[in-house]
Amino acid sequence: MKKYKIVFSYDGSNFLGYQRQKNLRTVQGEIEKVLTKLANQEVLITSSGRTDRLVHALNQVASFNLKINVNEQKIKQAMNTYLPDDIYIKTVEEVDEKFHPRYMAKEKTYQYLISQNEYDPLQRNYVYQYQKNLNLELIKEASQYLIGTHDYRSFVSENKIKEDCVRTITKIKIKNQKGIIKITFTGDGFLKYQVRNMVGALIKVGEEKLTPLDIAEILENKNRNTAPKMAPGEGLYLVSVKY
Amino acid sequence: MKKYKIVFSYDGSNFLGYQRQKNLRTVQGEIEKVLTKLANQEVLITSSGRTDRLVHALNQVASFNLKINVNEQKIKQAMNTYLPDDIYIKTVEEVDEKFHPRYMAKEKTYQYLISQNEYDPLQRNYVYQYQKNLNLELIKEASQYLIGTHDYRSFVSENKIKEDCVRTITKIKIKNQKGIIKITFTGDGFLKYQVRNMVGALIKVGEEKLTPLDIAEILENKNRNTAPKMAPGEGLYLVSVKY
Repeated sequence: MKKYKIVFSYDGSNFLGYQRQKNLRTVQGEIEKVLTKLANQEVLITSSGRTDRLVHALNQVASFNLKINVNEQKIKQAMNTYLPDDIYIKTVEEVDEKFHPRYMAKEKTYQYLISQNEYDPLQRNYVYQYQKNLNLELIKEASQYLIGTHDYRSFVSENKIKEDCVRTITKIKIKNQKGIIKITFTGDGFLKYQVRNMVGALIKVGEEKLTPLDIAEILENKNRNTAPKMAPGEGLYLVSVKY
Repeated sequence: MKKYKIVFSYDGSNFLGYQRQKNLRTVQGEIEKVLTKLANQEVLITSSGRTDRLVHALNQVASFNLKINVNEQKIKQAMNTYLPDDIYIKTVEEVDEKFHPRYMAKEKTYQYLISQNEYDPLQRNYVYQYQKNLNLELIKEASQYLIGTHDYRSFVSENKIKEDCVRTITKIKIKNQKGIIKITFTGDGFLKYQVRNMVGALIKVGEEKLTPLDIAEILENKNRNTAPKMAPGEGLYLVSVKY
């Protein structure tokens, strides 16, 4: 029995989310189907975390066990031959049997793209087409309150609010490239909908409907209902997972 | 009766080409369906030219007549409300009844994107993922032979070779941005498959399987069968049409 770590990218547009669901097209489901076929045994994968429907990944990480002994490069090649063209395996690496993609992840980076430009049909699945100007300086100021170790329950999915919501965000980088605002979040881990809810709140600040201090207050409230609605999935990218 | 000129963009990925075809999803078909519904009369459009299946447009141009008298901005708004999200009307402008988008076009610009990088699932519909390095200097050298006024029948669709294939290419710009080669062709007009066939030939030069002088010879031959196979549709963009 050998354990392998894979790093892969996918376009979330045409999947019904990440997690395996019977008879539905999901990222995990497609990968497991191909591995099961190639290995001629049932293969399930463990991932660094799920992504929501429509969300993309540049470097998602997963692991799986194989009874057969195959060369890493051969596994990569075979997987890419059989996977659909919206998933791509970038690397395959044999790892220690104790490797766990979720528990051992030390740092995750997500990026969210907001376009202030006129609607572009070619970008419809790849950025949130907000189409109005946002006050970047206020967004930058507000984002500072989100950095640090906090209980983020104001920004998570309803059904997570009973869990431990303390996480650490180490860095938030914001830049404007040709009208597209790119917000990059780095931290030890993110809860379900956390990034999209934080972005939703930052957009309200950019619209000048909330002040940067309101963001500090929403965070402090620890109450999901005080946060603005979350930003849509198509603007979000899982950029990397570090171990 | 008033004539309107529209400038619009589309993502070619999910259309069965540009031209109206009964019961098939095409760019022209979708636009005519919406206009016919909005105007409550049959509306057909005349375009600057067709694009092939999978090809994108940043600024395609078409015209149509309306019996009703409506404000340009209202037409734009109404069209964008009813059109699918992979077509977007950028401008609507009332024009002289003599305006013809094809016959009066003075200059067209197309761009072709070739990626030398590793496969990227997020780019699968938007660049030709060639995935190997090409010799850019040789491609630049070869492209010079394609500039000027020539009979381009070596580079056109089989079923066009009995027509007049003389056209003028005024400019070919080539650059490499992060591993993606962008080739921009400007000329008075392009024949069916001409850009994709020229790109197919330039790729062979970049692979060092043909020399730049071979391109001059293929052009001189005026024989479709001596040219290499054409590049795929997803890398091609109609950038602009000038009048």
